[in-house]
Parts: sequence; structure tokens; C-alpha cells
Amino acid sequence: MRPGCWKMLAVAVCMVLLAGLQAQDLQGHVSVILLGATGDLAKKYLWQGLFQLYLDEVGKGYSFSFHGAALTSTKQGQEFVAKVLESLSCPEDVAPERCAELRGRFQQRSQYRRLRTSEDYMALSKDIEAQLQHEGLREAGRIFYFSVPPFAYADIARSINSSCRPGPGAWLRVVLEKPFGHDRLSAQQLATELRSFFQEEEMYRVDHYLGKQAVAQILPFRDQNRKALDGLWNRHHVERVEIIMKETVDAEGRTGFYEEYGVIRDVLQNHLTEILTLVAMELPYNVSSSEAVLRHKLQAFQALRGLHKDSAVLGQYQAYSGQVRREQQKPDSFHSLTPTFAGILVHMDNLRWEGVPFILMSGKALDERVGYVRILFRNQAYCAQTETRWVADQSQCLPRQIVFYIGHGELGSPAVLVSRNLFRPFLPSGSWKEVEDRPGLRLFGRPLSDFYAYSPVREQDAYSVLISHIFHGRKDSFITTENLLASWAFWTPLLDSLAHEAPRLYPGGAENGHLLDFEFTGTQLRFSQQQPEQLVPGPGSAPSPSDFQVLQSKYRDSPLISAWPEELIAKLADDIEATAMRAVRRFGEFHLALSGGSSPVPLFQQLATRHYGFPWAHTHLWLVDERCVPLRDPESNFQGLQAHLLQHIRVPYYNVHPMPVHLHQRLCAEEDQGAQMYASEISALVTNSSFDLVLLGMGTDGHTASLFPQSPAGLEGPQPVVLTRSPSKPHQRMSLSLPLINRARKVAILVMGRMKREITLLVSRVGHEPKKWPISGVLPSSGQLVWYMDYEAFLG
Amino acid sequence: MRPGCWKMLAVAVCMVLLAGLQAQDLQGHVSVILLGATGDLAKKYLWQGLFQLYLDEVGKGYSFSFHGAALTSTKQGQEFVAKVLESLSCPEDVAPERCAELRGRFQQRSQYRRLRTSEDYMALSKDIEAQLQHEGLREAGRIFYFSVPPFAYADIARSINSSCRPGPGAWLRVVLEKPFGHDRLSAQQLATELRSFFQEEEMYRVDHYLGKQAVAQILPFRDQNRKALDGLWNRHHVERVEIIMKETVDAEGRTGFYEEYGVIRDVLQNHLTEILTLVAMELPYNVSSSEAVLRHKLQAFQALRGLHKDSAVLGQYQAYSGQVRREQQKPDSFHSLTPTFAGILVHMDNLRWEGVPFILMSGKALDERVGYVRILFRNQAYCAQTETRWVADQSQCLPRQIVFYIGHGELGSPAVLVSRNLFRPFLPSGSWKEVEDRPGLRLFGRPLSDFYAYSPVREQDAYSVLISHIFHGRKDSFITTENLLASWAFWTPLLDSLAHEAPRLYPGGAENGHLLDFEFTGTQLRFSQQQPEQLVPGPGSAPSPSDFQVLQSKYRDSPLISAWPEELIAKLADDIEATAMRAVRRFGEFHLALSGGSSPVPLFQQLATRHYGFPWAHTHLWLVDERCVPLRDPESNFQGLQAHLLQHIRVPYYNVHPMPVHLHQRLCAEEDQGAQMYASEISALVTNSSFDLVLLGMGTDGHTASLFPQSPAGLEGPQPVVLTRSPSKPHQRMSLSLPLINRARKVAILVMGRMKREITLLVSRVGHEPKKWPISGVLPSSGQLVWYMDYEAFLG
Repeated sequence: MRPGCWKMLAVAVCMVLLAGLQAQDLQGHVSVILLGATGDLAKKYLWQGLFQLYLDEVGKGYSFSFHGAALTSTKQGQEFVAKVLESLSCPEDVAPERCAELRGRFQQRSQYRRLRTSEDYMALSKDIEAQLQHEGLREAGRIFYFSVPPFAYADIARSINSSCRPGPGAWLRVVLEKPFGHDRLSAQQLATELRSFFQEEEMYRVDHYLGKQAVAQILPFRDQNRKALDGLWNRHHVERVEIIMKETVDAEGRTGFYEEYGVIRDVLQNHLTEILTLVAMELPYNVSSSEAVLRHKLQAFQALRGLHKDSAVLGQYQAYSGQVRREQQKPDSFHSLTPTFAGILVHMDNLRWEGVPFILMSGKALDERVGYVRILFRNQAYCAQTETRWVADQSQCLPRQIVFYIGHGELGSPAVLVSRNLFRPFLPSGSWKEVEDRPGLRLFGRPLSDFYAYSPVREQDAYSVLISHIFHGRKDSFITTENLLASWAFWTPLLDSLAHEAPRLYPGGAENGHLLDFEFTGTQLRFSQQQPEQLVPGPGSAPSPSDFQVLQSKYRDSPLISAWPEELIAKLADDIEATAMRAVRRFGEFHLALSGGSSPVPLFQQLATRHYGFPWAHTHLWLVDERCVPLRDPESNFQGLQAHLLQHIRVPYYNVHPMPVHLHQRLCAEEDQGAQMYASEISALVTNSSFDLVLLGMGTDGHTASLFPQSPAGLEGPQPVVLTRSPSKPHQRMSLSLPLINRARKVAILVMGRMKREITLLVSRVGHEPKKWPISGVLPSSGQLVWYMDYEAFLG
Repeated sequence: MRPGCWKMLAVAVCMVLLAGLQAQDLQGHVSVILLGATGDLAKKYLWQGLFQLYLDEVGKGYSFSFHGAALTSTKQGQEFVAKVLESLSCPEDVAPERCAELRGRFQQRSQYRRLRTSEDYMALSKDIEAQLQHEGLREAGRIFYFSVPPFAYADIARSINSSCRPGPGAWLRVVLEKPFGHDRLSAQQLATELRSFFQEEEMYRVDHYLGKQAVAQILPFRDQNRKALDGLWNRHHVERVEIIMKETVDAEGRTGFYEEYGVIRDVLQNHLTEILTLVAMELPYNVSSSEAVLRHKLQAFQALRGLHKDSAVLGQYQAYSGQVRREQQKPDSFHSLTPTFAGILVHMDNLRWEGVPFILMSGKALDERVGYVRILFRNQAYCAQTETRWVADQSQCLPRQIVFYIGHGELGSPAVLVSRNLFRPFLPSGSWKEVEDRPGLRLFGRPLSDFYAYSPVREQDAYSVLISHIFHGRKDSFITTENLLASWAFWTPLLDSLAHEAPRLYPGGAENGHLLDFEFTGTQLRFSQQQPEQLVPGPGSAPSPSDFQVLQSKYRDSPLISAWPEELIAKLADDIEATAMRAVRRFGEFHLALSGGSSPVPLFQQLATRHYGFPWAHTHLWLVDERCVPLRDPESNFQGLQAHLLQHIRVPYYNVHPMPVHLHQRLCAEEDQGAQMYASEISALVTNSSFDLVLLGMGTDGHTASLFPQSPAGLEGPQPVVLTRSPSKPHQRMSLSLPLINRARKVAILVMGRMKREITLLVSRVGHEPKKWPISGVLPSSGQLVWYMDYEAFLG
């Protein structure tokens, strides 16, 4: 090298150094205050995470000071922290001497102080300011990491807000650890309290699963493999999604906490739900935009279908209640209802995921420790060769799956697995490397060699990852208030409905056998095996419907079919289908007029979910009556029909005939002639205006359709459809008239529930007095009338 | 035994014998005439089948005579038949001497005669009558079995009808063998011809697959296991149905026949389709009612979704064309397009089966000989234990399937298989027995021991089974004319569309590798592997859309987006979705006004099948214009919207706004004020009457919406919605007005196809002249206008 070159090089080096210094000046100083610095979490993860932050960032123009803080006395705290700092480790590729040097620098920047009173916080703030001034540094921001129990939040938050905010232009970030409430209400209260001290953008709620490498890779993976996944990531291709966290340990030693929370609050409401949204959300164009990610996540929450009791199966390992009794000094008679195992079936109501089961499962005392998200794709191939000739990376008939392997299990490390017959995924080679094959190892039914398998180049602890994200303001790795409340809004109704359910007991470990296997039909989940025994026997169980026969007799001289509710509905649905089939066979179409109200709802559900052969494509649906409200009003009979029947079946648009109660932006105005319009629609489409079947109910006052006692409208006369007045709100109604109803080929009257007992008795004795009891005027002129009554209505 | 007892016994025996004789008298005499008695089929199966019939029925009160008939001379025929009769075998459980005796009796009742002319048939009839009279027998009926080529049918049928019908009170049954035509038209012609000679109930069309024991067991199995299958046999539980017939042989020696038919006509149109209907049909209450079975079968045909080119993959084994050239004396340049392999994807449009893929596959020169119907059930379980601990008959996570194993394959015999984790099936123990386990044998991915497996106690040839059914008049085992024509109606459009497709060549046997594997997306089927080579190169292929970039420029001073059709539609759909998302985010809803006609159809399909995140639940759909026809008229714009968009997505009923062109049973009557109604519906629901997006087209005369040149209606003035007149039929229209369109936030104009070239050029040059070119009046007052043109419209 020529001498001139040395000079040039020196100049270049200096410029780089200067640039570095300038950057440092520009970026400023960060104070990190670790609250609860002497606690377990701090000892295990947080100090190490802060050291890692220091190593990663100190060369990039920031300066740091780290303040361990707690209620512990200064001396004890200092000793504790000193010991922890001594044990910090460097990444593998750092030589021991270099590591000792780096650790030394970090120790210099770290100190312990006791923080109890508001004055302590004020003093801290003054010390930070003094240091800044002394060293001539610009303040970049302050991080307060709350590694303390939630009951301590409020005081600390108040002190920070009042006495320890950074100066103007610098940011404040407070980091919060779960639990974030116990249900929707408590979470809301906690959130409101925190919002009185901090801005939303100042708060970082930690779900440490979002820092686990395989979980943190879900969105980048979806983004970097957009092209391959674009056509696959939807209900047409995905068969199911499993989001699983299995533990072998039990809750011993932690039952105080666990009794209050249980597995759903401990694992599902937070970790597994967060993962669910990462898998299910619409992928933003720019996944590095926190705002876009958080917005799409919230949309995913909105698309979640509400859970009900039947969405869950619960278990509890047999030793649990004993452990609680011992640890919580409970009497021998105490049996806990807290679940330590839960399987949940989640569905999403959007076009991408409609019908795809998302299975969430977690439990303690299971047969293995493992966590994963598994996306199993449908087999949509037929392989013309006999199975023995299939080749793993060519045959589309072998399972195709993508697995984000969170850790532990047979593999023993985080990983991303993609079946070789799917596509070769892209993963950033700097941080992910291919896993070497381990012959004999099978995962998810296939040998490891069937997968493209990647594991992290450097395994990182979740807290290190998250501390780095806090520092970089990557809010999408944290739980916003909206997100938190959306999650609680989703889970709370289920938790409430399960509060008094006895979980199935399981022995634990491999002994569980198939006891905890569960299966689903539609949206209903249940254990695959019958319950072998019940810990807490439920209240004396009522006889089941099938213990009884359907009774057939007479009521008001017409056939009466009587049964327990479930069986009655099944029978009525069968009869309607048979009538429909006959009508379609004879006339090519079936005209069905339906009543509103709550009684027919189970009937609609029965028809929608059990009657596969129902000729809907040839069925016309009419309304017997309607309330004068807009069609989409929750009060509207049509709205009930839409929600419980129409949205589940496929009736052509023009075969659906809502009553025109809402014309010219008015409700049931005489001059809009809605009733006449409906009548002429009927007369145009229904031969002879004879419906094939009219389904009626009976009110406790003897009304039917919207024909009410002491009101002559619709009881006789030439008008087929009439406006009427109900004694209860909304008063205005539109209704088929009695003469039109009586033209039907068949009329079915459904009467259910104890409330109907009196009127049932009364009407059994009266003659033809439609003005007093409109129901008594139902008498098809040439058609058939059948009464369907449940035992409660009929026998009281 | 005491002497008195002997006497009593003798009396009892005599009574039984007398009862037998009386029965014989009652049931009468049956004459069976086997036409083509010297042919291959007769030799191989039919004589044996008739012998079996004789053995089964002769003790039950019938007497028989069997007439072998053909064109062969009497002497040669007699010799041939004598030889065949000599070789007939008895069931295994009949001792040799007894068998010889029975065969002797059968031979006595069998004779050969030449049947050529109408006189021959007359003579046959006289002989039968003479025999009846001579022996004092009542005639029960006559069976004519047509084992002759179809071209001979007409003459024989005419002769039978005119000269050989049985006497009054006795039945006639004619048995016909396929092929029953070549397509819908020829089948119809053949059927019409036959109907001029025979009543429908006299004809028995044989599909010998219906006589195969596993196939014949499908309906009885469904009936006898009704309770277990009731909840399972539907789209919620069935993942797929495979109906497969694989052959190892090729068509050598039969190419004359095969060239004309090919695999679809040879196997799929008949055998596999029949099986499909047995699996898919609604199960009649009474499966032994032929009438009910046939009716339900026809209903299954009606539910079949039409096939299109993309429903099929075709193959041809490589040696085939050479074999045809040799056998049919074709020139070296000849290449056949006849498929010897076909995979077909069938869907059914009913609630039971919607979305369930029925895979039909058959081929020659494949790697194994096997036939089966496999019903694979969805895995709807999650098994909490690690896979290695699953137990076959307990784990619901292992495959669950029911297989009707027609024959051959690894198992080597007909069988019914039911996975043990499903249920223990009932099969009649007289005719089906459990198969012994064969360790090492795996079927459908599982060891044989995973199944309850049953095989016939006595294997029976299909023809024996069917001949017995003919005798017993069990018409449900045969193809009625309606059934036949329904099947051809289903297959013919596909056959037509595939007539000029080159099948993929395959080497044959195990060499096929994964070449013939196929897979489906929605209703589209394709080979899993790219075509390695093409036998007959198609016409010079056009550049694919993705070879070009989407062009952005200006047209009439507004943004113009131009591309090849496919890409243009994709871009427009993306833009509409983005607009929708923005609108829903800002306002909670999205108001979209759509035009009719053919241009938007691919757009609708794109939106329906690719845009999973589209906020349909918050979208209101309006019509830009409508023809004054009933909504369900095929001409109606709304009908197009229904067929191509609405039926695939879930828009709430009340968010759909068809134009009220049909009120009071009249079309667009001024006095019904439909236009005013629509206008007020818009003003009530659409803020400021500004649609979020209006999609327009442009006619070759410069019209847009239903605003036509030289017609002032709707071009200006206060009316938001107007009735207009089109120069083409139907003349009457309803349309949004230009002023209303111009209030929209965004207007997109889609122009596609070469036909639009001239008007595109013209309109590019004109100013604002809506009276001449209504499209030139589209100019949103504060919204945005974007043109979407494909290259053909834009560049010509």
C-alpha cells in the first residue's frame, strides 16, 4: 500500500468515528428502570435481557443507565443485583475475556435503588437529570419495566406520572406484565386506571409468547412467503389450525394463583389467542407497520364467532384438588372446579376462514411438554398409483402442513416446518438455518425428512427479544388496550358460562390415554369418550327426551302431536320436510309461510343443520306476520328468520318474501298499500293463494299470527293481508288474515312452554270464537290442521 | 319311533309335496330366450347365470324352458350350446353326483334354435304355446336376453313385439346390454326406437356393476346401518368419496370398439355413475321398493352440478395410438385423442353433499387392478396424547373410512370395510362373513386389522345376481330409460367439450409415477405435475397475461388502467376491495352499484372466489340499471348478479337492492313508481346519495348504464332513477341517472373486447356530448373516475 493510501484510510476511519459520535449525540441517553429488580422474573430473564439490549445497541449511538429498583432495602438489593450481574452471559460467539469486559461496562452503568414513595421517584428523576447534565447528554427516553404484582401498579404509575416523567422531547415507555385482569370488567377497570396515568402509546403490555422466536416468525413468514401462501391461506385449502401448549408439570406450589385463574385465563386468553390472531389476520401490505398489524389484529378479533358452553371441554388432573387443599388450607370436603386442561373450538366469521376449525388446547400434567401452531392443509389430490409407490416430496396425497414449533417436544428447539410437497419456504438465512435430519424422528405423523425444517441460528430468550422491541418501539409485539379488551370480550362469556361446570378428571401423564381426546361437530365440542365418572354430581338430571314417546291424540278435534321439546321440534321438522318433498314432487315448488317469535327458532335451527335433503332451491318462504319495524331491526320477524335459517341455507333471493312493512321510508303507512302488495305477490305466485304449509303459534291471550282478540281486522272479509294492532309493542303489525290462512293445504300450530298451559286448557274448551280467541278461528276449509305441543304446554 | 308316527310323517310329506305342486301351478312357466347364445358373454357368464337361476327357483313353484338362440345354423349352434352346458358348474356345497343330476335336468330343459326372421320368432312362440298346452302349464312370462350388438336390436325387438309376446296375463322382460348409445342424442334415439316395441317396465338394461356383490350391498348397508350412518352421511362428516376402477390391461385387440368409446363412455358414464348415485342418493324409507330407489336415484342425478372442461383430466397410455394404427390400419401420422385414463371431479348441489368432492377415476395400463368406492370421513378430533400412544380402535384421529371393495387389488375379493374407530357395522350374516386378518396387508393407509372387514360367504358372479333380479322383477338393479338419459345428459356436455383435447401420455404400469396424480381447487381439476411433453401441439399459444405489465395512463383526462383481460379483472377487483375496506373503515358500510351484462361476470367470479377479506357483511349492493323483466328471468341483470356473485358470498338479505322493475305483477309501469321507490331507498340508505363506487360499462353505441344516445331520459334533471328505452330488446329499462352517477365518490368504467375498439377510439376524441354519447357525460362532480380497458378494447 502506498503512503497516501494510509492517509486516506486514516481520514476515512476518523470520519466513521466522528459519525458514530455524532449519532450518539443525536440518539441520546436511555434510562431503564427495572421495578421488581430482585424478583424471580428479573433474576431469570430481565437482567439478561437488559444486558443483551446493551450489547446490541450501545454501539449504535445510544448511551444507557440501568436502575434496578424494588422495595428491598438498598443494601440487600445491591447485593442481590450484584450477584445477578455477575452471572450474566454473552452470546456464544463472544470470547470470555471480551465478555468479562462487556459485563464490566454494563455493571458500571447499573445500580440498585429502593423505590417506595413518591419522593423516591422524584429523587430518581433528579438523579437522572443530574447525570444527563453532568455528562452533557440529551435524554432519549425512559423505560419503566413493571415486574411487580398488579396490585402495586397504581401507586407506581401515579409516582412515575407525577414525579418521574422524562423531559420534553424524550419518550416514556412503561412495560406491564400479565395478568391484565381476570375478566372483561376487571381488565377494563385496570386499563382505565392506567390510562389516567399513561398515554396508550406509552404502555407496553407483555405477552412473552410474542417474543418466542417461532411465534415472532409467523408474520414475517407469511410476508416473505406471500406468493406461495397467497392461494393457500384460506378455507379452501386449510383443513384446520391447531394452537397447542402442552405441559407435563402441574400447578403444585402455585395453586394460590392457579385457583383464581385456571388454564383458560393463564394460557388461552392471552398466549394462544395472540397466536390465533397472527395466523388468522389479513396480512397487511406492510408487516413492519405496527399500526397496520395492530389494526388487522383487531379486525381478526371482530371476526371471531362467539363461544358458547359447547365450544369447550375442560379437564382437571386428579391430584389438583388435593394440592389446593394442602396449599390453601381447605377442608377435606373441598373440590376445585378450576380447569387445568381446556380444549376450545374457535371459528371465524369471514370469507377467508369460514368453516375452518381453530383448535386451541392447553393443559398441565399431560404426557409431553410441547408448544406449536400447526396449519394442516386439505388433501385435495387423488394419487393414481398405489400408496406404496408415493414419494414424499412429490405426492400431493401425503399430509401437507406448516408448523411453527414453539419449543420443547421431540424436536427440542424452536423451528419452522413446511412439508416438502408444499413448497420450499424462504426464511432469512441470517437468523434461521436448516435443521439436520434426525432419522427415526417423526413429527405430526411424518418423518422429519418430509419437511423443510428451519431452526434459529441463535436461540434467543423471549424476554431479550421483547426488550429489544420495546426499545425500538415496535408496538405490534405488545398487547394494546383495545386488543386486550377485545380478547377479554371474546373469552369472558365463555368463562362465565363455564364457571360452575365440573371439569373431567384425568390421572396425568401418559395415563391419560384417550380420556382427553375431543372432537367436534359443527361448532360443538365434546370429549370423544364418555365421562367415566363425575367428581361433583350435577343436580338430579331430568329425563331425556328420548325416554318418552311422541304422543298422538286429538286437540280441538284435530290431530295433536305431543312430546318433549327436542323431540317435538324434530318431529315437526320431519313433517315439514315430508310436506315439502311432496309439494315439490307434485307442483315443482313449496310455499311455506312462517311465524316469528322465539318458539320457531329451534325449528329453524333444526331445519338448517339437520335436513340435508330439504328442497330449499324450490321453496318459497313467506311471512305469516311482521312487526312494523325495519327488516333489519332485531324486533323484526324477518330478522329472526335471516339469523336462524336464511343465513345457513341457500334459498334463491327471489324466493324469499319479507312483508313490505317498510315502504317509502315509512312503516306500515296505509297509503303505501304494503298489505295489498303482499297479497298480490301471494296471488301471483301461490296457486289459488293456498300455501302448502302455514306455521302458526299461539299467544297466551289466544292470538295467532298478528290477529289479536277484540280487534276485528283480519278475522274475516276479503282482504288477504291486513294491518293490525297488537296490545304489546311494537303495536303496528302486518298479518295474513284468517280467511287466507284457512285456504292453506296444511296448517301447523306450534305451542311450547309452561306459560302456554292456561291458554291451552282454555282453548281446548271454547268453540269457534275468533273475536275472543283468534286461534279458535283457524280451521282450514279443505286443508289439514295439526297441533304440535310440548308436554309443558299440554300437560303443565 | 312308533309305527303311528311313520304314518303321520308320510302324510306330512305328502302335504308338503302337494303344496309344492299347487304352488308350481300357481306360479307358472317361464321361457328364457338367450339371444346371442353362442357369443362370448353367453359362454362366459350367461348360461351359467341361467343354470343358477334354475337351481335357485325350480323348487319354488316355477317351471322353465331355456332357448338358446342366434343366427348360427341349428347344427353348429346345438353343438356349441351342448358344449357350454356340459361345462356348467354348481355351487361349492353341491356334491358332484348331485350336480351332474341337476345339470342333466337343466340340459333337458335347454335347446338351441336359430332365430333370424320374424317367422322364426312366430314359430318359437307357437312352440312355447304348444309346450304349455301339452304340459298343462300356465304361462308366467318370457325373458329375452339380448346378448347381441346394438345394431341388431331393432329387428329383434320388432319380431318379438309382433310375433313372440307371451299370452295375456304373462309378463315380457327384455334384457339389454350396453352400449346404450354414444351420447345423449343417440341414447335418446335408441330409447325411442325401443319404446315403440316395449313398455318401459318390460325393459331391463344391464349395468353388470350393479350385480357386483360389493356394489349391490351399498344400499342394503346404508339401510341396515341407518342409525350409525344417519349423522355421518353428509357434508359435515364426509371428506371425500372416491369411486375407482383401475385396470392393468390395455385395449389391445379391442381398439375398434375403444376408439369409438374411450374410458368415459366405457366405464364412467355407466358403472361409476351408477355407483355414485347409490352412495349419494337420499335413502328411501323402504329400500326394497324399486320405485322409491329409482325415484331417489333420479333425484340424485338432478342434484349433480354440471361438468365443464376443467372437471376432468385425461390420459392415454403411450402404446395406444400404435395399437390403433396396427389394428385399424391407420397411417403412421395417425394419433388418437381417445382417453384411456380419466379423473373426474363431481359435485352435488344439495345440502347433504354441497362441497364434498366425488372423485371418479378409471384407466387402463395402470399399476394395479382394483375397484372400490371409498368414503373417507373428516378428521374432526384432536387427540391430546402424542401420536405414538394412539390406539387404532379408540383414537378418533386415525383415518375413518368405509370402503366397498368391488374386487381384485391386494385383498383379492369383494369386501365391505369399516374403520374400527367408526362403528361396528351390521351385515347379514347369511351372506357376509368377517375376513380373517392378514398381517402385513395394508389397505388405504391402514393395516387390515384396523377395519371391520366382511366378504361374501359365497362369491357370486354379477350376471348370476342380475339374472336372479330380472326373474324377480327387481327393476332397481337396472337402468331405466330416464336414468340412462339423465346420465347421458350429465356426461354429454363434458364429452363434447373434451372431444378435441389431447390426453396426457403415460408409459403404463408402475412407470406412471406421479404423472397421473391430480388435484382440485374448488371445482377445477388438474394434473399435479406439469405436462412433460405434448403429443399434439395446440394452436400457437397466445402470450400469457403475466407476460405484460399493467399500463397506467390517461383516457379522456382520467386515469386509465390497461392490461390483458385476466390481469385487468384482478386489478379492478383489488381496487374495489381496497375501496370497500376504506369505506367500511371510515363509514361502517360500503355502497356499491353494479352494472349487468357479460363484462362484469369474470369480475364477479374473481370477487366471489379470491377476495376472502372482502367486507361483504357491510356491503350494500345496488343495481346501476335493470331490464324490465322479472328478477328471475335469465335476461335480468339481477339474475346475473345472483348466479355469479350473490350465491357464492354472504351479503345480508336487506343489503341487496334489486331494482323494483316488477311491481303489482307489472313490469316498469309508470304508475307503480318503481323508479321513485328506488330513488328514495337510495336517499334513505346512501349518505348524500353518493355511492362509494359505481361500476359502469360502455356499449358500442356509447351508451352506459341504461342511458342511450338520442334519448334524453336520465341525462339531466332532478330524477335520480329513471325509466328509459333501449334500442335493443327488452326495450324497457330502469337506470340510475347521470346526475346520480356523477355524485359517486368513485366511478369505474370497465371496457373489454375487440368489439369496443371503435367506440373507444371515437369517445377518446369527443367532448361532453351526453346526448350523442351518454358515456361522455360521466364526470363525477367531486369523485374520481377511472377507466379499466383491456388491450383489445384499447389497442384493437
